[in-house]
Amino acid sequence: MAILSERALIRLIRERSAASAPGLIQGIGDDCAVFGSPEAGQWLITTDTLVDHVHFDRYWHPPELLGRKSIAVNLSDIAAMGGRPRFVLLSLCLPPSLASDWLQCWLSGVSAILAEYGCVLIGGDTVRGRELVISVTVIGEATCNHILYRTGARPGDIVYVSGPLGSAAAGLALFQRAKKEGTSWEQWPQWQALLDAHLNPAPRIELGQQLGLSGCVTSMQDISDGLATDLAHICHESGTGSVLYAERLPSLPSLDSAALFLAQEKLDLLLKGGEDYQLLFTVPPDREKELEMQLLSTPYHQIYPVGIIVEGQGVLLEKNNGTPCDITFQGYEH
Amino acid sequence: MAILSERALIRLIRERSAASAPGLIQGIGDDCAVFGSPEAGQWLITTDTLVDHVHFDRYWHPPELLGRKSIAVNLSDIAAMGGRPRFVLLSLCLPPSLASDWLQCWLSGVSAILAEYGCVLIGGDTVRGRELVISVTVIGEATCNHILYRTGARPGDIVYVSGPLGSAAAGLALFQRAKKEGTSWEQWPQWQALLDAHLNPAPRIELGQQLGLSGCVTSMQDISDGLATDLAHICHESGTGSVLYAERLPSLPSLDSAALFLAQEKLDLLLKGGEDYQLLFTVPPDREKELEMQLLSTPYHQIYPVGIIVEGQGVLLEKNNGTPCDITFQGYEH
Repeated sequence: MAILSERALIRLIRERSAASAPGLIQGIGDDCAVFGSPEAGQWLITTDTLVDHVHFDRYWHPPELLGRKSIAVNLSDIAAMGGRPRFVLLSLCLPPSLASDWLQCWLSGVSAILAEYGCVLIGGDTVRGRELVISVTVIGEATCNHILYRTGARPGDIVYVSGPLGSAAAGLALFQRAKKEGTSWEQWPQWQALLDAHLNPAPRIELGQQLGLSGCVTSMQDISDGLATDLAHICHESGTGSVLYAERLPSLPSLDSAALFLAQEKLDLLLKGGEDYQLLFTVPPDREKELEMQLLSTPYHQIYPVGIIVEGQGVLLEKNNGTPCDITFQGYEH
Repeated sequence: MAILSERALIRLIRERSAASAPGLIQGIGDDCAVFGSPEAGQWLITTDTLVDHVHFDRYWHPPELLGRKSIAVNLSDIAAMGGRPRFVLLSLCLPPSLASDWLQCWLSGVSAILAEYGCVLIGGDTVRGRELVISVTVIGEATCNHILYRTGARPGDIVYVSGPLGSAAAGLALFQRAKKEGTSWEQWPQWQALLDAHLNPAPRIELGQQLGLSGCVTSMQDISDGLATDLAHICHESGTGSVLYAERLPSLPSLDSAALFLAQEKLDLLLKGGEDYQLLFTVPPDREKELEMQLLSTPYHQIYPVGIIVEGQGVLLEKNNGTPCDITFQGYEH
């Protein structure tokens, strides 16, 4: 039997999807699809599916935090377009062995994060199956003319990220190590922030909206598959290339010691680590000052310039002013 | 470990969902959720998850037809509110063993039905898992003030169905028999219509819209879990009871012989058989003539009065003018 690769399948599905239809503003190919009209309002929609043992591990993931994360990864897609999340649909495939207590705690986490972000649960489906599969759809509201796509980056634009990278990947590796060795992660209080980054990521909803409204940002997406892969998406969709500066990539102070302990290159964690759910965006050089001024008056003003958009294609990495090397699509694999 | 029943879980989820929020017109509790505003347009959204071996069997279900059905069951929810389907999101959980050919045929079926109903695929997600899980979300457009809910039935209203009942349930039972006995269903050309009703149900989109626009219909939903269960939903949501007349329930001519062959009560198939995806709706007695006149000019004018809404609660069945007996929620279980 010929097996279809995920990439081949996505290509097949994209071929069958419509680029244009009445009321369709953006189809497949960005963090969210966009529908509606400038007059009547524009809606964002995104869906993500999490599978037990593939996307999460109940061995270390407390159900409340997994409930939060199940929603957060979708909220991050809304943030990546500059939108405001509004409505959520939940489809659950539940194995008979799943304990009622676990499910109730998971639902508590879902409820808590929905309340925090002003979202409401409006529908869904519950079915039986052999393994736990969690499918979440989030609908967001967009302010017309302030939606940010992956397509708008231009040569000369500065590449920014909204926060430290590699944290979630290091946290995941620490949990995997503890599970393998049968030890407890409570022995690592110095790496709690990394563990938390994996367990309970915070979608950057407010910053995303602020960036959308700023008028200073040319393209945006969230970092779910790692900086190298996600920046490659922006470059591909914008028809540009990019250069990242290794020394500029922000990280938590504890990442150095964790990388050493894990015997992983810190730079690999920064470039390839997935699931940080920070925002990645581009700003023309003549709008940098304006954006920084706008953000100074907000509680989420810290942003980090990490590279530049150039002519060409792909993602290059420059280390110590050396010759840049190609790191396009060197991202995270579940 | 305490296991949560599906009913208990749905109750838990309903408790955590919002009945009202800005822009939310209908939350959990109908065929679709409804959001938007009368000025800016109202949108319907529904999601359904199908699990291999639970909701379908690849032994007899050709992939193209399963692709069609995966979409059709969601389109039927849009039809049940009087809406027009527009956009589709697809979440697939694919086991490594799934053949590429199968998936391509399945996608062809999806594409074909989307084109037929003027829908476009705008997003989704593809993940790996141990079993095949297909989650479909459909967004529909509604004409303001013409959305039909389950809540509007009033005592005295006539209960209608849009077509023959029990066909899909008989078709499913025939396939199960053939599989069990290792024989072919091609030996049963006389029951082809029943087999087709299971394999390839047709959502009643045009009729649903016509009924929504007619102004003559007080409540509606689709028949997915069987007439007894689905009418119980309308009664529960409307705060009424109902009486069905056994002799009036429409069926295909071949259902009699199939029921005999399967050693099943034909009446059970009519009342409890799921997945017919006909529409179930209520009409005040003084609007019956008007509705019939309106439908006469359309290609889908055949509708069947099968009962009446009464004070009280639940669903009663009257046979041969005898004493009615309670059949509330005697529906289809996957």
